[in-house]
Amino acid sequence: MKKIAVLGYGVVGSGTVEVFYRNKAALEKKAGDELDIKYILEVRDCPDERYRDKFTKNFDDILNDPEVKVVAEVIGGLKYSYGYVKSALEAGKSVVTSNKELVAAKGAELLKTAREHNVNFFFEASVGGGIPIIRPLNQCLSANEIDEIAGILNGTTNFILTKMIKEGMGFDEALKIAQDLGYAERDPSADVEGHDTCRKICILASLAFGKHVYPDNIHTEGITKITLEDVKYCESMNSVIKLIGFASRRGDEIAVMTCPAVIGEESQLAGVNDVFNAILVRGDATGDVVFYGKGAGKLPTASAVVSDIIIAAKSDHSSKTMHWEDSAQDFIIPYKKLSNRFYVRANADKKTVNDIFGEVRFLSRDGAPESECAFVTGEINEAEFEEKCGRLNVLGSLRVLDY
Amino acid sequence: MKKIAVLGYGVVGSGTVEVFYRNKAALEKKAGDELDIKYILEVRDCPDERYRDKFTKNFDDILNDPEVKVVAEVIGGLKYSYGYVKSALEAGKSVVTSNKELVAAKGAELLKTAREHNVNFFFEASVGGGIPIIRPLNQCLSANEIDEIAGILNGTTNFILTKMIKEGMGFDEALKIAQDLGYAERDPSADVEGHDTCRKICILASLAFGKHVYPDNIHTEGITKITLEDVKYCESMNSVIKLIGFASRRGDEIAVMTCPAVIGEESQLAGVNDVFNAILVRGDATGDVVFYGKGAGKLPTASAVVSDIIIAAKSDHSSKTMHWEDSAQDFIIPYKKLSNRFYVRANADKKTVNDIFGEVRFLSRDGAPESECAFVTGEINEAEFEEKCGRLNVLGSLRVLDY
Repeated sequence: MKKIAVLGYGVVGSGTVEVFYRNKAALEKKAGDELDIKYILEVRDCPDERYRDKFTKNFDDILNDPEVKVVAEVIGGLKYSYGYVKSALEAGKSVVTSNKELVAAKGAELLKTAREHNVNFFFEASVGGGIPIIRPLNQCLSANEIDEIAGILNGTTNFILTKMIKEGMGFDEALKIAQDLGYAERDPSADVEGHDTCRKICILASLAFGKHVYPDNIHTEGITKITLEDVKYCESMNSVIKLIGFASRRGDEIAVMTCPAVIGEESQLAGVNDVFNAILVRGDATGDVVFYGKGAGKLPTASAVVSDIIIAAKSDHSSKTMHWEDSAQDFIIPYKKLSNRFYVRANADKKTVNDIFGEVRFLSRDGAPESECAFVTGEINEAEFEEKCGRLNVLGSLRVLDY
Repeated sequence: MKKIAVLGYGVVGSGTVEVFYRNKAALEKKAGDELDIKYILEVRDCPDERYRDKFTKNFDDILNDPEVKVVAEVIGGLKYSYGYVKSALEAGKSVVTSNKELVAAKGAELLKTAREHNVNFFFEASVGGGIPIIRPLNQCLSANEIDEIAGILNGTTNFILTKMIKEGMGFDEALKIAQDLGYAERDPSADVEGHDTCRKICILASLAFGKHVYPDNIHTEGITKITLEDVKYCESMNSVIKLIGFASRRGDEIAVMTCPAVIGEESQLAGVNDVFNAILVRGDATGDVVFYGKGAGKLPTASAVVSDIIIAAKSDHSSKTMHWEDSAQDFIIPYKKLSNRFYVRANADKKTVNDIFGEVRFLSRDGAPESECAFVTGEINEAEFEEKCGRLNVLGSLRVLDY
């Protein structure tokens, strides 16, 4: 019999308990042992009568109970979770988490702690919700050198962009609907400013390239500046706008960025709509592999947490492969040195554009004012692009990515 | 140091050796041990000078060498592979294979043998080539009850159908091109008659539902009867024709079939073109998850074989979860009892069609002869459909599936 503790009884926590008890018999068969949830850590007074005997407000009950072998941290944030997770690992308990902020900020350290105490730190649910991506990346694609990862990693922003693209809805209106449906928080900045996507691409990059990539070092742009005019111009070149997190191997260095980008309709990422996520992994042997599914939500995320619980429960030693090192960030190419094609919308005439950017591809849309000019540049580096844009009255710009 | 033997030096075998040596240092780090290929079993005289000292024609060299811990079987077929794999497992060596015919025919037995000898039998490469699907299905989705699996599992037929759909090319011409490009065999029947797809959906169904599903018990149709007229009618209802293998839980029983089917354009399977494969898995908690990538080819398949080699090399005991039982086939619903909507093309008038099928949705296409009539039925079971078709001059029919 292996005992489990669940830290937090919010959306993912209650989902974790629900999925666990719904499929308990099948899960025990898979784990090869009896399993039960012994504690649920929650500050509120017994929010669920069914589990009355399991609730505690005192983490030490869990920490000091040698019966507890696996701790599932689903509180989120860093304030409480970091200390709980660290001390649980030090006490010889495996930890699984859905907390991307924790993994992105402290992954290397917590993986090291887990290894030192011969237990596991798993985080399948931290990226892509119910989509299996962490373990496939680590195990199934292990024969590959990973050259590139690019993903639609945030369901809220993808929902908003889908509304803008498919229904011609403005950003504010689409955000409002996302909030009404419970997809977006009252304070949506973590989503719409790209921070959530950034954390997730940092986790994937760390795993793929073996060195911790910290979010603070990654250039991150959100979707708040995107207009319906941009959507229309992109449509005219058979493309859509998606918020993309990407990490790309360039020799011994890597390029990592989070930004809204123009993606051709033939891309496997272009047809990913609403709250769905998709992650493209390009391996040197396997070519492009894409993982698609619901990137968030109570039960999908909970199912990833529970899968990790099962694997942690049946493992009697630290995973040798799920690991990356802490590292100076000098292997990350400063984003201003990166090159891309760019989509630009400006108040300018074509001659001025050509004078500044050389040959470009001009775009058109119905109802555009005389003064507006939209175009796609050739390959140009970020610093140079910024300098050139300074000489133009730019209304909006986006990177054009080939995935 | 762990030694490996590769059985067969054809396309996948030579790819396996290539991927192994290309990424050897990284693989050893992941395996936590030194690794080397000691033997390559091959009937031809040294087909590759670089590995001169590794070739043998005598399987007993491998079987009797206690240094060999992992055997990779990439011969294909059943004739030699079954005996080699069985005896390797009995000798306490783990086996990994890309051989779907072997796994579909003997999976339950070989998994049992592996377990009895505390070694592993892995087969990630047998389905979906380089797409991670076997292990994610087994591990990451383990908290789910799997309700449904549906996949485009054969690259050759998907290439042919893509040519028919996108370029209006006839079946024979498309097959010829597939053969010229090396995608289709000289004798293409295993692909175009659906047998390859059938083996793969049987493997996935066995894993998802825990009981061996034998290909001989599964209704299987190929794509040889599909015409450009059918393609056009489907286009008129925003749908495409794909060769689908599906397995679906219906209470305590399952429905399994391989057939060309009409799929709506909004489906995640509809945009899967050329030699790409995709597998949709519907879990009760996670909802729809889709895995997409190259389903065949030398390096993708080899990368899956090598990933399995790494996991087998670092494991010191039999996997507790990668398992299914042999079983009577009475949990498989006889296909004539299944219900579907059907697309039908017939020489008939609308009144006759309505008299026989009741209310249907009629379709049209440019240039259809006066006598031709195409329509989509309501939900109807296979036996009844067959009976009704007997009263009509049917030119072609396809199941309409919702994925």
